[in-house]
Amino acid sequence: MAKKEFEQGITSQDEDFSQWYIDTVLKAEMADYSCVRGCMNIRPYGYALWEHIRDAFDQRFKATGHQNAYFPMFVPESFLQKEAEHVEGFAPEVPWVTHVGEEKLTERLAIRPTSETVICAAYANWVKSYRDLPILINQWANVVRWEKRTRMFLRTSEFLWQEGHTCHRTEEEAREETMRMLRVYNECCENELAVPTVMGQKSESEKFAGAVDTYSIEAMLADGNALQAGTSHFLGQNFAKAFEIKFLDEDNIEKYVWQTSWGVSTRLVGAVIMSHGDNAGLIMPPRIAPIQVVIVPVYQEATKTLVLEEALKVEAELKAAGIRVKCDARETVRPGFKFNEWELKGVPLRIEIGPRDIEKGHVVVARRIDKEKAFVPRAELVPAISKALDVFHADLLARAKQRVSDLTSEAATLDELSAILSEKRGFVWAGWDGSSETEEKVKEATKATIRNIPLEGSEPTAGLKDLVSGQPAKYRVLFARAY
Amino acid sequence: MAKKEFEQGITSQDEDFSQWYIDTVLKAEMADYSCVRGCMNIRPYGYALWEHIRDAFDQRFKATGHQNAYFPMFVPESFLQKEAEHVEGFAPEVPWVTHVGEEKLTERLAIRPTSETVICAAYANWVKSYRDLPILINQWANVVRWEKRTRMFLRTSEFLWQEGHTCHRTEEEAREETMRMLRVYNECCENELAVPTVMGQKSESEKFAGAVDTYSIEAMLADGNALQAGTSHFLGQNFAKAFEIKFLDEDNIEKYVWQTSWGVSTRLVGAVIMSHGDNAGLIMPPRIAPIQVVIVPVYQEATKTLVLEEALKVEAELKAAGIRVKCDARETVRPGFKFNEWELKGVPLRIEIGPRDIEKGHVVVARRIDKEKAFVPRAELVPAISKALDVFHADLLARAKQRVSDLTSEAATLDELSAILSEKRGFVWAGWDGSSETEEKVKEATKATIRNIPLEGSEPTAGLKDLVSGQPAKYRVLFARAY
Repeated sequence: MAKKEFEQGITSQDEDFSQWYIDTVLKAEMADYSCVRGCMNIRPYGYALWEHIRDAFDQRFKATGHQNAYFPMFVPESFLQKEAEHVEGFAPEVPWVTHVGEEKLTERLAIRPTSETVICAAYANWVKSYRDLPILINQWANVVRWEKRTRMFLRTSEFLWQEGHTCHRTEEEAREETMRMLRVYNECCENELAVPTVMGQKSESEKFAGAVDTYSIEAMLADGNALQAGTSHFLGQNFAKAFEIKFLDEDNIEKYVWQTSWGVSTRLVGAVIMSHGDNAGLIMPPRIAPIQVVIVPVYQEATKTLVLEEALKVEAELKAAGIRVKCDARETVRPGFKFNEWELKGVPLRIEIGPRDIEKGHVVVARRIDKEKAFVPRAELVPAISKALDVFHADLLARAKQRVSDLTSEAATLDELSAILSEKRGFVWAGWDGSSETEEKVKEATKATIRNIPLEGSEPTAGLKDLVSGQPAKYRVLFARAY
Repeated sequence: MAKKEFEQGITSQDEDFSQWYIDTVLKAEMADYSCVRGCMNIRPYGYALWEHIRDAFDQRFKATGHQNAYFPMFVPESFLQKEAEHVEGFAPEVPWVTHVGEEKLTERLAIRPTSETVICAAYANWVKSYRDLPILINQWANVVRWEKRTRMFLRTSEFLWQEGHTCHRTEEEAREETMRMLRVYNECCENELAVPTVMGQKSESEKFAGAVDTYSIEAMLADGNALQAGTSHFLGQNFAKAFEIKFLDEDNIEKYVWQTSWGVSTRLVGAVIMSHGDNAGLIMPPRIAPIQVVIVPVYQEATKTLVLEEALKVEAELKAAGIRVKCDARETVRPGFKFNEWELKGVPLRIEIGPRDIEKGHVVVARRIDKEKAFVPRAELVPAISKALDVFHADLLARAKQRVSDLTSEAATLDELSAILSEKRGFVWAGWDGSSETEEKVKEATKATIRNIPLEGSEPTAGLKDLVSGQPAKYRVLFARAY
């Protein structure tokens, strides 16, 4: 019987990175286009990755004292309007429910673009005394922002995310929480997604509608472009005042709470794909990979039973050790087909088992990151695979960090910035006087924006000037083109 | 300092079961009313219960070969209309999005009441060959059905649920899947929620809009009323034909797939509350309880350090054994307050530790189900608590089964049925000729409906008659009033 040939069919990264991304997402069956404009179907392989990302973050939220809850997806129009900047920022891209069945609603309902308003309305009932504080709640939910230009995972009309919403007694506590969750995001991206990020504060023009201060983590993708991978907002008392969230303090004085909110989304799936993938397809970070190890048995008719039995034994051993393993025993395709397919799907380790391997008491282990192969003694398999997964994570992270280091430059003028961005992209440090005029001029000339004012390294060096105005720089900031 | 007094403030079950339910949900902080009509805020304690229920089912779905995925919440109007019975069943309670921002949409979008249409549209692209089958996918999501009369958890405009959607090569396979998942529901409700259910087929008038056959699990609540706790549908080829889900079979003939869908929802939280709770509040089934064991230290000023240290040690030991335990070390309230509060919240086991207990080398363990107390030697604590949780589950399930047995009757006539329902409610077996006329007359006279045609015991006994028409019975069925 003729066996099916493997068709990789993905554009190379150098030829067209955006097309490579679309091809990879579709061919690896991470997601596809849905019947609804700007929305996607997240397919099982893509969703499994999201589940592992979700669990990694959720565990950290719980370890820092947060609890999950769930609030309605509908926002009454009057609620959305209570915080002036908030409604201005979100209203243009909000879907409105006007009817139920044949009946017209007396008040229109927005589908949540974020839940500050609905959640603050609940908090106003829950908070009475300083004893009720802090409130540390997170929600996993779907939200909608009707974007003009969409891109699977990175920017879709509907997406999945988590949104933390906390209330505190003092400004200091709320500011601490804002920074704590920013650091949790940074740590989780590094240790689970193998994606290093730069923590910093957003400029006034880029902050969340309704926040006092917004902080972000910024990742660098394989093409040198930046991606905002998560945000943490210090909301001050803006929403507390709009929604009357007050508490009686120990000193018997009624006060407004101080709030934060913070979120990461299915965009992180895009970050993983674009950060690690190569011309053969995906490369999954081992700790969140849906499948960490794939076993491909290689046999002739005469050795089939022997090899398949051994392959299933290896699968059972690894599974018992808590490793996410799959034995690909399909008979309709050749081993070469399977190699290509699992490479496309980015499974970190592939174990090949043939009759000669069994004879010699070893297996072949191939690494997706560099396609290197090694013989591993059969008796040491479980600890060796566990270790190989850790080493794989470390190598993937080191590679990503190396890229950030290679593609981070310094520019003194707008011309220098332009030149760097057209030559190699990446992050570019430059002086900034703090004005929105500079931001606008840079954007117009280069399409780059200030990604953030990094927590580290943003102190202006002596004599540093704004790259546009030539005025003394207030900060050193990171410019980049972003998705 | 005067310590706060505990106010239980819940109506007794005998006085008004519905009010008892609302009081308990609110006071135990499971949920509260939201700013949006018919929607609720699921508070952390209620959501934690849902997370454990979700995980219990999710694990079983994965063990039976299903994968999770995610599809858009919007359903284009033209899609909803493709299956005639389906749109007729759901259109009256569907919210319609007509505008985004200021812009009017060219086609209205419904918020999903269930996802057959959107998912079938995707499956039509995914299925080409018999090799692509079966498709075994589940989705955890929010859905909206704008109900006229709502009740927290049992019936809310928006609710959380899972919906399985599968495609099969043959009718037989699809029918097997329908029954497999019905049995998974039944087993999970018994072994995790301690809620026994009756599996059976819904009558024609009660089946899912668009299904060929609908099966349900029916629970009996503490007041003797029934609750449909989950449904599993054999969809035949109805949606396959409407959405053109075809595959090339091994015999080279193009065929429509056979489908199933099945779901359980946050309604199960209501089932747990109403099934197990008593006049003191909730009783949580141990396997899904957010907190399985609460420790209350009891001390005077002189023994405070000694007792608190011991309490924290016990907490650490139980936590290390994987038990969900909380040490309530609050100093603002007395132990009696804590006892009442954790009883209201239904924590299965309470450990009391005082200086005399430490001296004697034991702790006091109190069971929420019957308030019985026992001394447990300190050295045997961990295994004793693990065992006590299992025994608690078994006792809770046995109690629920006893209720079903006590409150299941048999009626030969409509008058007998009426009398039973007004005396003690419960499930009532009766003969049914299969006509919708009987169903309507019974409903009119008693508000009871056929819950289902049970998988076991529905064979009519010799000479059994329909309770209304007096015609020969086609089935023995279960009637009950339901939420």
